[in-house]
Amino acid sequence: MSPNTISFRSDNDWGASPAVISAIASCNALAARPYGADDWTRAVESRLCEVFERQVGVLLVSTGTAANSISVAAMSPRWGSILCHRHAHVYADECGAPEFFTGGARLVPSASAGSRLDPQVLRGELAVGRGDVHCVQPSAVSITQCTEDGQVYSVDEVAALSRVCREAGVPLHMDGARFANALVSLGCTPADITWRAGVDVLSFGATKNGALNAEAVVVFNEGLVAQLPYLRKRAGHLLSKMRFVAAQMQGYLADDLWLANARHANDMAARLARGLESVRGVELAAPASTNILFVRFPESLAAGLRERGFDFYGDRWGPGVVRLVTSFGTTSSMVDEMIIAAREIAGAKS
Amino acid sequence: MSPNTISFRSDNDWGASPAVISAIASCNALAARPYGADDWTRAVESRLCEVFERQVGVLLVSTGTAANSISVAAMSPRWGSILCHRHAHVYADECGAPEFFTGGARLVPSASAGSRLDPQVLRGELAVGRGDVHCVQPSAVSITQCTEDGQVYSVDEVAALSRVCREAGVPLHMDGARFANALVSLGCTPADITWRAGVDVLSFGATKNGALNAEAVVVFNEGLVAQLPYLRKRAGHLLSKMRFVAAQMQGYLADDLWLANARHANDMAARLARGLESVRGVELAAPASTNILFVRFPESLAAGLRERGFDFYGDRWGPGVVRLVTSFGTTSSMVDEMIIAAREIAGAKS
Amino acid sequence: MSPNTISFRSDNDWGASPAVISAIASCNALAARPYGADDWTRAVESRLCEVFERQVGVLLVSTGTAANSISVAAMSPRWGSILCHRHAHVYADECGAPEFFTGGARLVPSASAGSRLDPQVLRGELAVGRGDVHCVQPSAVSITQCTEDGQVYSVDEVAALSRVCREAGVPLHMDGARFANALVSLGCTPADITWRAGVDVLSFGATKNGALNAEAVVVFNEGLVAQLPYLRKRAGHLLSKMRFVAAQMQGYLADDLWLANARHANDMAARLARGLESVRGVELAAPASTNILFVRFPESLAAGLRERGFDFYGDRWGPGVVRLVTSFGTTSSMVDEMIIAAREIAGAKS
Amino acid sequence: MSPNTISFRSDNDWGASPAVISAIASCNALAARPYGADDWTRAVESRLCEVFERQVGVLLVSTGTAANSISVAAMSPRWGSILCHRHAHVYADECGAPEFFTGGARLVPSASAGSRLDPQVLRGELAVGRGDVHCVQPSAVSITQCTEDGQVYSVDEVAALSRVCREAGVPLHMDGARFANALVSLGCTPADITWRAGVDVLSFGATKNGALNAEAVVVFNEGLVAQLPYLRKRAGHLLSKMRFVAAQMQGYLADDLWLANARHANDMAARLARGLESVRGVELAAPASTNILFVRFPESLAAGLRERGFDFYGDRWGPGVVRLVTSFGTTSSMVDEMIIAAREIAGAKS
Repeated sequence: MSPNTISFRSDNDWGASPAVISAIASCNALAARPYGADDWTRAVESRLCEVFERQVGVLLVSTGTAANSISVAAMSPRWGSILCHRHAHVYADECGAPEFFTGGARLVPSASAGSRLDPQVLRGELAVGRGDVHCVQPSAVSITQCTEDGQVYSVDEVAALSRVCREAGVPLHMDGARFANALVSLGCTPADITWRAGVDVLSFGATKNGALNAEAVVVFNEGLVAQLPYLRKRAGHLLSKMRFVAAQMQGYLADDLWLANARHANDMAARLARGLESVRGVELAAPASTNILFVRFPESLAAGLRERGFDFYGDRWGPGVVRLVTSFGTTSSMVDEMIIAAREIAGAKS
Repeated sequence: MSPNTISFRSDNDWGASPAVISAIASCNALAARPYGADDWTRAVESRLCEVFERQVGVLLVSTGTAANSISVAAMSPRWGSILCHRHAHVYADECGAPEFFTGGARLVPSASAGSRLDPQVLRGELAVGRGDVHCVQPSAVSITQCTEDGQVYSVDEVAALSRVCREAGVPLHMDGARFANALVSLGCTPADITWRAGVDVLSFGATKNGALNAEAVVVFNEGLVAQLPYLRKRAGHLLSKMRFVAAQMQGYLADDLWLANARHANDMAARLARGLESVRGVELAAPASTNILFVRFPESLAAGLRERGFDFYGDRWGPGVVRLVTSFGTTSSMVDEMIIAAREIAGAKS
Repeated sequence: MSPNTISFRSDNDWGASPAVISAIASCNALAARPYGADDWTRAVESRLCEVFERQVGVLLVSTGTAANSISVAAMSPRWGSILCHRHAHVYADECGAPEFFTGGARLVPSASAGSRLDPQVLRGELAVGRGDVHCVQPSAVSITQCTEDGQVYSVDEVAALSRVCREAGVPLHMDGARFANALVSLGCTPADITWRAGVDVLSFGATKNGALNAEAVVVFNEGLVAQLPYLRKRAGHLLSKMRFVAAQMQGYLADDLWLANARHANDMAARLARGLESVRGVELAAPASTNILFVRFPESLAAGLRERGFDFYGDRWGPGVVRLVTSFGTTSSMVDEMIIAAREIAGAKS
Repeated sequence: MSPNTISFRSDNDWGASPAVISAIASCNALAARPYGADDWTRAVESRLCEVFERQVGVLLVSTGTAANSISVAAMSPRWGSILCHRHAHVYADECGAPEFFTGGARLVPSASAGSRLDPQVLRGELAVGRGDVHCVQPSAVSITQCTEDGQVYSVDEVAALSRVCREAGVPLHMDGARFANALVSLGCTPADITWRAGVDVLSFGATKNGALNAEAVVVFNEGLVAQLPYLRKRAGHLLSKMRFVAAQMQGYLADDLWLANARHANDMAARLARGLESVRGVELAAPASTNILFVRFPESLAAGLRERGFDFYGDRWGPGVVRLVTSFGTTSSMVDEMIIAAREIAGAKS
């Protein structure tokens, strides 16, 4: 990537918040117990209990794929199926990691229209083959908050899905790779959108929003806790120097850095959306809710922007559709430069 | 762990070298391609080719368990067996991770006496059940360099084992969680003790010797390369911000920091060994070769040292036997304090 | 099931052909080598080479699920995906057995409309994620001949699909649980509809058409043969007294019993279809091709027939739709009784 | 195998009892529900409750490997270990099937001396790594009754092992591939040697003792029942025409055929042992307990017997050691011919 490139490709393109780097450096002074038996890990566990206003189980890992896969593996027998959206990261972007961690359970993409699971559709899908030995057994549901296209489930929507899960006797997982972005968009508490709405396990992401490689499995359902350490160790995700992941998470959660980072990223997306709406031929797929925008560009705009050093994905969602992602590191001048460039290339709306 | 504790428990107790922390901080400035498509990762690949004096395949991961498990999974079919020492980390300390990654292959502890695999014993074990559909099929051999008790395989010993592997048509894996410690002990080149001696895949450890969480699978056998990226991704070990692992490895390899760190750790172990030999009732299981010592303590010495703040493992190897591990962070005064304390408690040898 | 019931539920409801029972009894006289090293097994292998007019690999097992699962496990890495119809037995009726045998590969139901895979649709689906480490890798295609709703792929249709597979570099599996029924419907040779049309592996079913529990994996692609014995043994499907499966297959193939049985079953389905077409309100979903009919019944006809002792499935395919399956054991008087009863209940077409 | 060969190789070399063949033929008359929802299967379940004098869970399968693997898979998490004898069929002769069915649990051969597990040794082995996330977790014990070398565990010995299991909180599996041979040797009831002695799950073998391919998983521990049908289906072991396995088991259990067959086989082994004791240079490894003898032959006796058409295994247990196995089909004249031949070749004891 050229140093002059301005990336709207992914929040993964960005590094870490300085406070997170500092937290790593400052936990390096002394020797400490390995494998998570250290003070930093304990402190993170306490801090997450505060954040979620209750006792929670916490398992630190280095990637969202690990967090998601361990979560669903704790929920589903090997002959189970896990209902999810067809665009869900667990289904579309993890090379079958959930199948691997579960020992061969099936990810079943829901027929729900739109970008969120529909409780009515889900209810029917959770009934398929139940108790019939010839069929995989519906065992868990996984939703993404915010979704892969940047939309959010409201508290009521999560609660409606969790009621359907309860009826069917299956737990509900929330992939929160961008949980902070969803949270500041919703304006509710972490508790409201998770366990109070019926979520059993949350993949609490930090990497995309300012950490290097730190994610937490946060468990609200005590019955799912016991297997987690074995699932993690057996997958090679129990780091010997776990404190360096814990330190990242500490830095991320301290002084509400995580919320500030997410708020900034969301603000940048909103600013970008407003600016692009003024460009001729540009259409937003949906109002800016978080830090991801899907936008339809008129012919040649994408190419023109790329020539000027703006980078973004655009080859997967039909002709003219591009994805623009902002992050804690995106500056307002980056956004404004992009808007100005877009106007120059495509002209302003008349 | 009390801040006054002096740890000889494990090299995992120590943090990272300052140069490694700096390397992380300095790669944080700009945005970069995620998932290993970044300049730092490419630079590490080049650097490892230099270190090993040939083209090698490189796969970065965060833990030794992941490196080992991915390595053997690339070598063995699901109905295979992997011969190893009964104390090998892959057998004794990874909660069945190799079984998980291979899809259920079997780890078979060799009947070899001592702490290293014996080529003659191995030859017989590699013939068991070969071609018999009722039996798991011997498919790979894994050795640890240095071994779990701090001993090293000489170049000739590795070559003798690899010849047995070649005869049997199976590849040879080297778990080099403490590869640097072995290397400086042997005084040979990285190439001599690996591919020139017939090693197919090396788990090249950095974490124990100065990194936070960085290991590399280094592949000398081209036929084993293609599956690795899928094995890594599917296990959740493809980090989105992989450059932060690459940066650690860069810092670790730059200016031969890795060799300096290992040399220091080994020197500290030798100093400790010399000092303890002067203590009444103390017996070393073997001369100091690397940074791990197994020592028999007279009654009450272990307890006495622990009371004074020295920490080490001592409950697994029979009465009186303790393990003492030094690291790049162990200072000569820590070593000397321990020797002085031991003499005060147990007295000097007459 | 009441002894007076007349079953059109499934060909699985029927027993075995008398010649198959005799074959079992007659191979019982002498002692023999176990685990398939017997003369009956060798004879079946030869006979299947005759049937398919070429050298084939043969692996005998006891169930279609085992045959299918071993077949796809030989074709797909663990991070692979196997494209199939959404109604395919491997997807809908095997409780995730293919996922189990493959070590967690993914079954992907094609978006093809109708009851057969569409080559154009398949071409696109086989390109999804190819070479992208974030995605499961399209690795095999499985089609069912005849399909789950009793339709057949023509020779040209199979050839068109296999061309798409070749282009994508993936093998083609044919689930022939009712292969004989398809074959007599097509009127072609076994070779024409399999390897000459590009099929790599066939699950050659005998159980539904006159055996007790005998199926063969028939392999036309030599590169896929080596793993099969290990896949079978490891799944507990290598019978010690394998000759009793081989004897069934011998009896099944001798004197073209298998073709006669299938022809009879198909004839009974055609007779039933003709008869039902004369019943008021009855509609056939498709012309009778094999031994499976899907029929729309007017209200109350299904219930009325069940009251009179006719049994069939009818709760899975929308209101009024029932499935009627004939077998080698179905007699023309059973068929005629059903037609008469249907006319009495619903009246004749005007 | 030449028709003139007299086999003492394995009880697997023999066919089925005529009554078992008849039972298959007689259940062929009518149509029946598939997949075990038939009267024969229900009748077998009832009959096994009678045999074991209590309510038991029953799962019919076609092979001992399937029975064993499903049993241990119901007992052990994927990160578990299953303690067994180093000669146990599950460890030595199933190509890793238990590892496959469990999803990668580890079979750990006990260090027990002799041919049976030793409770004291087992107690220590069950404590290894318990609760330590770095270690596989001891989760089950599997013993073979009779053992692979034809010895039996007494009721007291089984009870002693089950007490050790209870203390450690793990269930006890009994591989009863030759359960009938053990039972008639012990002279106790089926209940005494299984659940009353603390066995949780039994692989109840019929194949070696007169069936074609019929085994039952018999479950005394209700908590282990629920998963079994899914484990069976997913492994392709739910036969569509399950009644033909049930019919075999019915025929096997009717009129105590199973006990008569085993008694006969054991008697033939005892007769053979007595006869061979009179042959010069022959030594029995142990008194005849069941239908398996391990015998040391003087030089050239094995070759001489093979020349005369007697067949047996002899290449795996050290120089001169052969295994002789009798079955329900072995006749006294076969035994006597072998004794006479042996005396002619090696001479009588002086």
